[in-house]
Order: sequence, then structure tokens, then C-alpha cells
Amino acid sequence: MGDLAEEVQPKKAFGWAARDTSGVLSPFTFSRRATGEKDVSFKVLYCGICHSDFHMLKNDWGTSTYPLVPGHEIVGVVTEIGSKVENFKVGDKVGVGCMVGSCHSCDNCADNLENYCPKMILTYGAKDLDGTTTYGGYSDIMVTDEHFIVRIPDNLPLDVGAPLLCAGITVYSPLKYYGLDKPGMHVGVVGLGGLGHVAVKFAKAMGVKVTVISTSPNKKKEAIEHLGADSFLVSRNQDELQAATSTMDGIIDTVSAPHALPPLLALLKTNGKLVLVGAPEKPLELPVFPLLMGRKIVAGSCIGGMKETQEMINFAAKHNIAADIEVIPIDYVNTAMERLLKADVRYRFVIDIGNTMKSTY
Amino acid sequence: MGDLAEEVQPKKAFGWAARDTSGVLSPFTFSRRATGEKDVSFKVLYCGICHSDFHMLKNDWGTSTYPLVPGHEIVGVVTEIGSKVENFKVGDKVGVGCMVGSCHSCDNCADNLENYCPKMILTYGAKDLDGTTTYGGYSDIMVTDEHFIVRIPDNLPLDVGAPLLCAGITVYSPLKYYGLDKPGMHVGVVGLGGLGHVAVKFAKAMGVKVTVISTSPNKKKEAIEHLGADSFLVSRNQDELQAATSTMDGIIDTVSAPHALPPLLALLKTNGKLVLVGAPEKPLELPVFPLLMGRKIVAGSCIGGMKETQEMINFAAKHNIAADIEVIPIDYVNTAMERLLKADVRYRFVIDIGNTMKSTY
Repeated sequence: MGDLAEEVQPKKAFGWAARDTSGVLSPFTFSRRATGEKDVSFKVLYCGICHSDFHMLKNDWGTSTYPLVPGHEIVGVVTEIGSKVENFKVGDKVGVGCMVGSCHSCDNCADNLENYCPKMILTYGAKDLDGTTTYGGYSDIMVTDEHFIVRIPDNLPLDVGAPLLCAGITVYSPLKYYGLDKPGMHVGVVGLGGLGHVAVKFAKAMGVKVTVISTSPNKKKEAIEHLGADSFLVSRNQDELQAATSTMDGIIDTVSAPHALPPLLALLKTNGKLVLVGAPEKPLELPVFPLLMGRKIVAGSCIGGMKETQEMINFAAKHNIAADIEVIPIDYVNTAMERLLKADVRYRFVIDIGNTMKSTY
Repeated sequence: MGDLAEEVQPKKAFGWAARDTSGVLSPFTFSRRATGEKDVSFKVLYCGICHSDFHMLKNDWGTSTYPLVPGHEIVGVVTEIGSKVENFKVGDKVGVGCMVGSCHSCDNCADNLENYCPKMILTYGAKDLDGTTTYGGYSDIMVTDEHFIVRIPDNLPLDVGAPLLCAGITVYSPLKYYGLDKPGMHVGVVGLGGLGHVAVKFAKAMGVKVTVISTSPNKKKEAIEHLGADSFLVSRNQDELQAATSTMDGIIDTVSAPHALPPLLALLKTNGKLVLVGAPEKPLELPVFPLLMGRKIVAGSCIGGMKETQEMINFAAKHNIAADIEVIPIDYVNTAMERLLKADVRYRFVIDIGNTMKSTY
């Protein structure tokens, strides 16, 4: 298991990995590099399960290599720092999100948009600078360049904070970039899952009126009473859609299954913005007239840069924003994946790595 | 011909109209309202032929009523003004574009975006406030609310200025709104027709680097030597497209035929904007991954408000921007439509109404 470079890594590590496209996870002994000059090593305590972990396990996007240790919503406590680390010390609470490297020399990196750097290195299943494969947070330790480490404020509990490192920044960044964060605005959130439920919380904390748009009428009570949404639209109810025509400044669309854009475009005011953060595998049908007639846009957004990710975590801590989670032991992870596929979780599984992952080395 | 309201209008008018979906134009005697308090009446001297005129003649969009007098790139000289007209006097050179009315009370109107007012009244084929049908500029006189009248600066010749009232504002407005007007930026222009050729001129005058993207290699010399584009890409040449990957801040896409968006999205840098101003009748295929991976947008834009239309005309006059036109007599108009369908014009037909339209009343 693992190539030569990995076998000679000095730090023993232990995690759960998929070995093939069956996607079944099982215990996996591997190794990580020694703490480099600019590296922060930390003991992983919690790791969220993102829907993309499921796709990567199954090689749904054709980019997976095995063994694959998923996990990019990772939090823990610093155990060791390199000699040139400036911002962290042993004992600090930290996190790692979707990326662990970038080129640091392109325009995007210069603009604090490492997430759009063509050489961005994903937290798992990618080639690291030293040629080894990156392994994610379904594991006991991480060794990561401090540039890609986020500080978790003391008042943000680690377990509910973990999902913010992917789900949180994925919705926070477009709310900010597309100017949908102004008090009094009206923003729709399509899909009430891992991303959608934190989108509601962030938008509300920004002072925005939020309408949840969902195929499931039975999520209405939850959306309004528990998450604090102002209103709720059943996406197949034509009367409800009609009544909300041209009322929204923007929509954060978290749905990754194929779906119709015209009903959503109709909800937008002039200059409205439909922002896709889910990634349907097949192209969607885009009618052009609705774009022209209201100067509307269909946009994309993918996580966020490190500076903004820290800003998002600080904002969450300040406004008591936390993911709604179900904490599970690592040996429940395969069952959790099955439930995830059925959307049977409110709203994020978080693996209790610290208490349940027992190394076999 | 015409309904009762039209028959009782006091101003005799003469134009060319289509009587049915054959789209064939022929002489048509009708009438217009007396010059109202806030109206400007003007003798039409030139009217451009827009591609949308062709679609309206044929009822391609299902909204046409007959008799239909097309024309929304209209220029002439003021002959009469209403008692409350503030900004124009007899003898002024003026123009009318795509709209002649709006509600003046909605948010869009308040924001000088009458073009996105839900009650915007099109220059032809629409119901005017008094219940009569609007007739366009393939006619000898116009009577229009001064709010929808544009002043044509003295140094902008009327014939080459006419097409700017639709084609010009259609490309100027998105260059400004989407921030593609900054010196040093790189903007692509897809399609080198009536819209595309003025897009090149406006973008160049803004200090932007312009690349024309066209299916026709034989337009390269024209685009660069005559219109001043900096470079030219043949849209079916994979090598050329590959070499230009991730180089453009934005693209103004003037093509109204169905076409592939992925090659255009690939040309955009991070945060790049693909702005559609042509209106394909069927939905386009929109792949979502390219939007996510570079925070790109697909956007629409439709003409511009009156304030911006005046700004555009003033900008054109200041920078000597004019449409490239072929002036024709009115009795050539049916032939011109046939040639338009074959894109056999560089780049806009303009009807010499003043000298060739002879009334029969």
C-alpha cells in the first residue's frame, strides 16, 4: 500500500481508506512527512463527512486513486510546529479544509484566491509537492503547511465547527463575493442539506431575509422554526413560485442533482444572481431570454481562499453559527455513507476521530 | 388597416409594413397621435435594420401583430414639441431606440433601467398607453415622449449613428455594468455582425484589449486591420483556443444561433464573465464545473436605460465611434432582409428614409 515516497515518510499515521471503487472504508496504516519548517502537525479530533467524500470514494468524477483517505473538514489540536511557523503554537485549536497547497505565485494566489490556483493541491487524493499522495482527515494526524491552517476560535466548539471548513466557506464566499450580504436583501437557498442549512444561518447573521426553496414540504417547520429562515417555498408548487416571482436579489443553489433553472431565474429581481455551488455531472439547460430580460446571471463559486476561510470561521464564532451535526464513531462511517446517499442526516455527519479512531500500529 | 384608435389619430403617417407572417414589407398609410405635452415629434431621416426586425416580421417570437411597421434605430430632426418638453427644440437632431414608454414608478425605472421595467413599451408592435399599436421607424414621422428621446451630438453623422441606438447600447451597457471597461483588460467579442463590430469599437475606445472570436477565418483581416481588434480566434480551431485559455476578463457573445458555451468559458480567467446579448430560441447547454472552478458567470444584458443610452451616444461621438453601414432606399428593404438572413452586409443596413420614403397620402 502506498508508493515508495510514502513508505519512507517518518510519521506513522492511521486512518480509514477506500481501496477501490466499491467505496468501502476500512482501517489503513500509512505515513506522513516529518513536520517541515513551515508545517503544523496536529492531532485530528473531528472530521466532517462531505457529500463529495462519497463521490470520491466511488470515483464518480474519474479522478480518484486508491487507497483513498477522505476528509476535508478537519479540526484538531496542534502537536508540533516547524521552525519557521509564525502563527501557531502547540496546543492551538486548528482546522484544515479542502486544500493543503497552491503555487503562491499566480494571480489567484496573489489575490488570496488559492482555491482557484491552477496548482491548488486538494487535501486528499492529490499529488503533494513531494510527490506523495495527500491523505485526508479520516485519520489520526495531519501535517500541513501553516498557510493552509485555520485557527478555530475558542468559543466555536470543534465538532460543530468542522463542517464549516468546507460547507461553511462554500456558501459564505458567494454570499460575500456576489454582494448578497447586505441587510434587507432577500436571498433564496435551494436545498436544505449540509450546505443549505449553514447558508441559511450565515445569510440570517448577515441581516438578509432568507427563503428556503426545497422539494420537501416537510422541511418547512424545520427551516423556519429551527434554522430561522423567514419563509419557505416548495419548488414544485406553482402557486408559491408565482407569488414569489421577481422578489429575490440572489439564490444560493446547493443542489448537485440535475434540476431546472427557469423557475429559479423567475424568482430573481432585475440584476439577480443565481449562484451554483453544487456540481451536477451533466450540463443544465440554460434558457437565455430570462437572463437578457432581467440582466440576471448564473454564476459559480467553489469554497474560498485561506484569508476568507479564516474570516468565515471568525464570523461564525462571533455569530454563534454552527453546523447541525450527528457525531459518529469511525466504525459507523460506511453506514453513514449509505445514509448520506439517502439524505438521511440533519445535516452533517462528523466523525469523532479523537475518541474512536484506534490505531493498530 | 389599424384599429379605431389609430384611425382617429390626427397625424397622418406613412411607412412600410408587413401584413402577415410572410414578412414582406409594403407601403402603409397610418396615423400617429398629436404631439402631446411631453412629446417630441420628429421627421425620420434614417432607420437601421436590426436582426430582430427580421424575427418580428416573421413572428418568430410569437408576439407580432399585423400590420407591423418595424424599426428601432431611428434618427431625425425635431419638427414639433409639446408645451412641457424641457430638453429639446425644433431642429434638434434626435433618435429613438428600442422603447418608447415605461411605468416611471417601479424600482427599475427609479434606477434609470427603463429597459427592465415590466411595463416597458417597445417602439413597435406593442400597445401604447392610449391603447394604440406602436409603429417603428420604417416611417416618415415619430411622436415620442421626450423621456425616450436621445440627443444626437452634432459631430455624429445621423446615418452611422442610427444603429448605435440598438446595436450600440446593447454592447456598451454590459461592457460598463460587468466592469469590462477597464484599460488593460482583455475582452473577447463573439460574432462579427451588427452588434459585434460596434462592440469591438467601444471596447477599444475604453482601452481594452479585444479579441474577436468568429467561425469565419476570412474575417480576420477585417477585424484587425479595419475594426482595430488586437487579435482574432477561429472558434473551431482547437490550437488557437487552447493557446488563449484563461486569458480573458470577459466575453461579449453576440451570437443568437445555438452554440457551445464550454469553449468560451475556457477562455475566461478566474472571475471571468461571459455575457450573452444574442437570444438563442432554445436553451443552451450549461456545464456547471467550469463555472465553479473559476468563479465564472454566464450573464445576460438587454439594451440599456435612457440615461445610459445618452451616455453611450455621447461616448460614441467623443471617440468617433460609428457603425459600418450600407445605406439603402426603402424600396430595397425586402431584398435587404434576404441579404441580412445570409449575413451579407458589413455590418448594418440603414434605410435612407428622408430621401427615399415617398408618402402616398
